[in-house]
Amino acid sequence: MIMLKFEHPLTEKVRIYLRVESLMRQLHKSAGFEAPLDYQLFFRSLFDLMDLFEQIHIKSELTKDLEKQKLTFKSWANVPGVDQAILDNVLNDIDDNFRNLMSAERFGQSLKEERFLSAIRQRFNLPGGTCCFDLPALHYWLHLPLEKRLYDAKIWTNTLEPLHNALALLLKLIREIGLYKPQVARNGFFQSDAEEANILRLDIPLDLGIYPMISGHKNRFAIKFMSFETGMAYSQDIEFKLAIC
Amino acid sequence: MIMLKFEHPLTEKVRIYLRVESLMRQLHKSAGFEAPLDYQLFFRSLFDLMDLFEQIHIKSELTKDLEKQKLTFKSWANVPGVDQAILDNVLNDIDDNFRNLMSAERFGQSLKEERFLSAIRQRFNLPGGTCCFDLPALHYWLHLPLEKRLYDAKIWTNTLEPLHNALALLLKLIREIGLYKPQVARNGFFQSDAEEANILRLDIPLDLGIYPMISGHKNRFAIKFMSFETGMAYSQDIEFKLAIC
Repeated sequence: MIMLKFEHPLTEKVRIYLRVESLMRQLHKSAGFEAPLDYQLFFRSLFDLMDLFEQIHIKSELTKDLEKQKLTFKSWANVPGVDQAILDNVLNDIDDNFRNLMSAERFGQSLKEERFLSAIRQRFNLPGGTCCFDLPALHYWLHLPLEKRLYDAKIWTNTLEPLHNALALLLKLIREIGLYKPQVARNGFFQSDAEEANILRLDIPLDLGIYPMISGHKNRFAIKFMSFETGMAYSQDIEFKLAIC
Repeated sequence: MIMLKFEHPLTEKVRIYLRVESLMRQLHKSAGFEAPLDYQLFFRSLFDLMDLFEQIHIKSELTKDLEKQKLTFKSWANVPGVDQAILDNVLNDIDDNFRNLMSAERFGQSLKEERFLSAIRQRFNLPGGTCCFDLPALHYWLHLPLEKRLYDAKIWTNTLEPLHNALALLLKLIREIGLYKPQVARNGFFQSDAEEANILRLDIPLDLGIYPMISGHKNRFAIKFMSFETGMAYSQDIEFKLAIC
């Protein structure tokens, strides 16, 4: 059975974390400029990230969250049944990423100071604004040898690597907390308490033709399932899997 | 010698025409959903087009412009030296496209009424707004079999085909008017008169490391060449080719 995998953030901060994670993935996928239009995705992801960095001081939020994770994991030291070697690895990983974060610039800072990027950033979001007459400098850049474009892209994305790695670690630790359990949404509706949870993860059978609408916060949430075909609430019982992370 | 090809519209309407042409090209290129992220380009192009259709009643503008072209071409009938067979072909082409335009809906109308598209359109432009939790319906749609997604895409793009074909014809006729002529920009600057021109087309040697900044309108224009490396005006003489269309 094909499952529709679904994630929902339960706090505003984690919502931004997941957006940043998704944009970083797009950025890396398009940074090879293999398809002629990959540059569109690349710059759009980069500029979206810069927008998000203006909404949240992500470096300080991430360092605080890694600190919290460290305290949690430290409390498991010398607890019987806990594999101390794995625990040490996790703690080392956290320390490494914490150090790299601390020594990084405010993310987006050097990108904002880059003349070429700031010249094209504003018009990029106009409808159809990537025509050569709107962005002549970009049009020139697109004609440069691939090698040079890859080099530039590497310099820009490298400034975000400490963020990318630290965020990947944090989200991995958060996701690993939750175990998928079978649940039933009676009449297409499910609600539950949570305890300081960050992310809900759902596995929904694709062939039901439904998708979830989720509301809530870290201590309580509700899931309403919608029929894709009709756009209305789906009112039958649904068996699905849920992990509260 | 590799040439940097460049186009610049001389009226606001042609500016929108060129943006629509560029977006239609992106739409068609991404409508096969071959790469995993093609859907991003596809929906972005589609929504950008819908934005442009709200700025200009493109159907009535295009019909007016095709009418004007028809009058121009008709005035060449029975003129000695003009190939009447070619002329007839052009006039037939114009008539066909004119008829198809006239019988088409207001472009974007049925797209706007499509529930799925209007549900995802608004959030699509949020930075990182294409995450599954922002657009659960889109996330479901992306899991549908390719065949079904291609079918949907075809239905949506088909509504724009009369526009695509008529615009392609009009821009072809406009571009064919101008012949490339060698020009020299003294100290990196060039200006000239034009006569009710629509588009400037430039061929610039790529290895000079420059791109043009163009200002002007249909009767007069100026081209300033900029150095990509320094971002400053390029102050040497430049040999380039120019077609005034």
